[in-house]
Amino acid sequence: MANLITLMTDYGTRDSFVASVKGVILKTNPQAAIIDITHEIAPQDIWEAAFTLRETYAQFPKGTIHLAVVDPGVGSGRKPIIVVTESYYFVGPDNGLFSLIYRDAERLRVHHITASHYFIANPGPTFHGRDVFAPVAASLAKGIPSGSFGDEITDFVKLNVPAVKRTDSTLEGHIVHIDRYGNLITNIMHKDMITLAPEGKPGASIISIGGKEIKGLKKYYAEAAPGEPGAIINSNGHLEIFLFRQNARTTLSLKRGEVVRLTVNPA
Amino acid sequence: MANLITLMTDYGTRDSFVASVKGVILKTNPQAAIIDITHEIAPQDIWEAAFTLRETYAQFPKGTIHLAVVDPGVGSGRKPIIVVTESYYFVGPDNGLFSLIYRDAERLRVHHITASHYFIANPGPTFHGRDVFAPVAASLAKGIPSGSFGDEITDFVKLNVPAVKRTDSTLEGHIVHIDRYGNLITNIMHKDMITLAPEGKPGASIISIGGKEIKGLKKYYAEAAPGEPGAIINSNGHLEIFLFRQNARTTLSLKRGEVVRLTVNPA
Amino acid sequence: MANLITLMTDYGTRDSFVASVKGVILKTNPQAAIIDITHEIAPQDIWEAAFTLRETYAQFPKGTIHLAVVDPGVGSGRKPIIVVTESYYFVGPDNGLFSLIYRDAERLRVHHITASHYFIANPGPTFHGRDVFAPVAASLAKGIPSGSFGDEITDFVKLNVPAVKRTDSTLEGHIVHIDRYGNLITNIMHKDMITLAPEGKPGASIISIGGKEIKGLKKYYAEAAPGEPGAIINSNGHLEIFLFRQNARTTLSLKRGEVVRLTVNPA
Repeated sequence: MANLITLMTDYGTRDSFVASVKGVILKTNPQAAIIDITHEIAPQDIWEAAFTLRETYAQFPKGTIHLAVVDPGVGSGRKPIIVVTESYYFVGPDNGLFSLIYRDAERLRVHHITASHYFIANPGPTFHGRDVFAPVAASLAKGIPSGSFGDEITDFVKLNVPAVKRTDSTLEGHIVHIDRYGNLITNIMHKDMITLAPEGKPGASIISIGGKEIKGLKKYYAEAAPGEPGAIINSNGHLEIFLFRQNARTTLSLKRGEVVRLTVNPA
Repeated sequence: MANLITLMTDYGTRDSFVASVKGVILKTNPQAAIIDITHEIAPQDIWEAAFTLRETYAQFPKGTIHLAVVDPGVGSGRKPIIVVTESYYFVGPDNGLFSLIYRDAERLRVHHITASHYFIANPGPTFHGRDVFAPVAASLAKGIPSGSFGDEITDFVKLNVPAVKRTDSTLEGHIVHIDRYGNLITNIMHKDMITLAPEGKPGASIISIGGKEIKGLKKYYAEAAPGEPGAIINSNGHLEIFLFRQNARTTLSLKRGEVVRLTVNPA
Repeated sequence: MANLITLMTDYGTRDSFVASVKGVILKTNPQAAIIDITHEIAPQDIWEAAFTLRETYAQFPKGTIHLAVVDPGVGSGRKPIIVVTESYYFVGPDNGLFSLIYRDAERLRVHHITASHYFIANPGPTFHGRDVFAPVAASLAKGIPSGSFGDEITDFVKLNVPAVKRTDSTLEGHIVHIDRYGNLITNIMHKDMITLAPEGKPGASIISIGGKEIKGLKKYYAEAAPGEPGAIINSNGHLEIFLFRQNARTTLSLKRGEVVRLTVNPA
């Protein structure tokens, strides 16, 4: 699987964009295996891309090349980059898209892609996914070392990642993602809840969100009563608010950015 | 193609769910080839999943492993299972999703998946698609026998499949699926119509649906007059109601479950 | 990559259609590698399919087989065909879908597919994607010569492709496609603009569309002022109208077919 390349974009699947990227990858490297992460990132929503990539990348085999393009600044000054961590490669624009990768990485190297002889001939200024990132990712998959594409840089762009505020007994975070079921994913993590409740009983919590209070945590969705919002630690360790077999987003009328407060072991 | 795995879920293609499943499959079995059936089953709609799987599975090469996850009860008591028929494997939750497979199969064995050493480490209770079903399907594709994953069971769950009522000259069924074109697919099958019209003229029928009458059957869509609903035997043998180049669902305001009555050779 | 097959249809990704096509391809030719172009062509919109195929096909390796099915006339008289150019194969219905390929090709041969022993057994009249085109494309990918599927024809169908009108200083074209970002793609090409402005300054143009005037061309999207429509030569050489980080289609209330007029070097 040295040739595995994943793709994540905001290109949608209706136009010719994604297929053009895949065509160029296969022209450059006929051995490449391509897996889609998603192409339905909301147009130009860099945070959503950063979050979705974070939830997925580590599930893939070591050495996988993750090509991610959400790129409102294409053609302007923003740099094309390769990010190298202890286990994976990432290729895309330097606009903060890889911010959560930087936070996770134990070892990290970022290269500014400048070796234009790897690009397709006469690359235009509007479609770097096809003209720059696709041939670079495909060449990387052939075993060309990351250093061949350009020098290392240290001033790469980091998003302002929403932080969790804590007191002795509370954690205050935000809804950072809403999934297709309408589940509300927050940036409050299970590991933070454990440090707050050293006796190991984060389950005895009260969660406040949008004027509602939710008592305690469920283990799985079907445990919640119909019509009642429930809270759960999801499969990636996030505190998540849901309604069993219903859409929490539309039922509770909440959106990304909404404040969530968790109080552990309230008296 | 001993390594071919198809995927069908209600995960949508916008979030990280599908890619996480694919990553785990490729981590477990780098030789696996993955084909999507669909990820747009309506959330938690077990019937739609069962129907769509039925329409598709037999088109694939013998030995294909069909991984299907529509799983509102994830984490609760419902069993993870492997279904083995004379030609295919199916992996997913025991909630009725494979009901139409059970009806088709000449030989049938169902295993309750309990061998947790095949699961990913520390599987959570909310994402069995990634944590349980993906590594099991990928291991099965490596040639590990189905019996290694757990004991055979016989009390597996079957959906109440909507039946067709018949008299000497009529068949009464339902709309069981509506496709992306708005075509209305019913559970009245060509083979039922033939037994009703032993002279072999099922074409001379009257079809009643939603207060409309349709006379006779068309051979192909373009044969119908513009704006007039037509009936046809579709490519999987179902009686289907359509409007040529229009959407029958919206034009006729009909939905799944609506009664369809067919009268053969009316006087 | 002699076995690479791309797929483009209006089948959507929610039903069993696409997976059935892929299953039949893999049953016929287990070595086939399948890449989706898109399955979200608007139902029965032959022009959109022709346009999208044109934008994509040449990005793929030489020898790629492009299977394209948007087929309102399925089962009626329209012919199934194979198109052979100097670099690619195309398989699909003879309804104009390949019109832009005919225009591009240096060498061109069109075969009427009649060799029904390549079809799946008992093909129905409503799903040629699965029953006719899939096994033919998969067989072609195995190296069976195109002539084995049927005789050459010369009376194949061509769409009336919208033309650009020109005077000494103006080009008048149309919006021919609107992409997922709401960008308005026109049939005015960079190469036409160059012949109009032999001094090589097509940038000094005025573009009129929907009662608005746009002065000059941008090099990349981020160059345009917020809220102001911009014009650009896109990555495939088309004049394109956009709003930076906004949707030009909804903001300007324009649709496919709208007239676009470009005046070069106005006094």
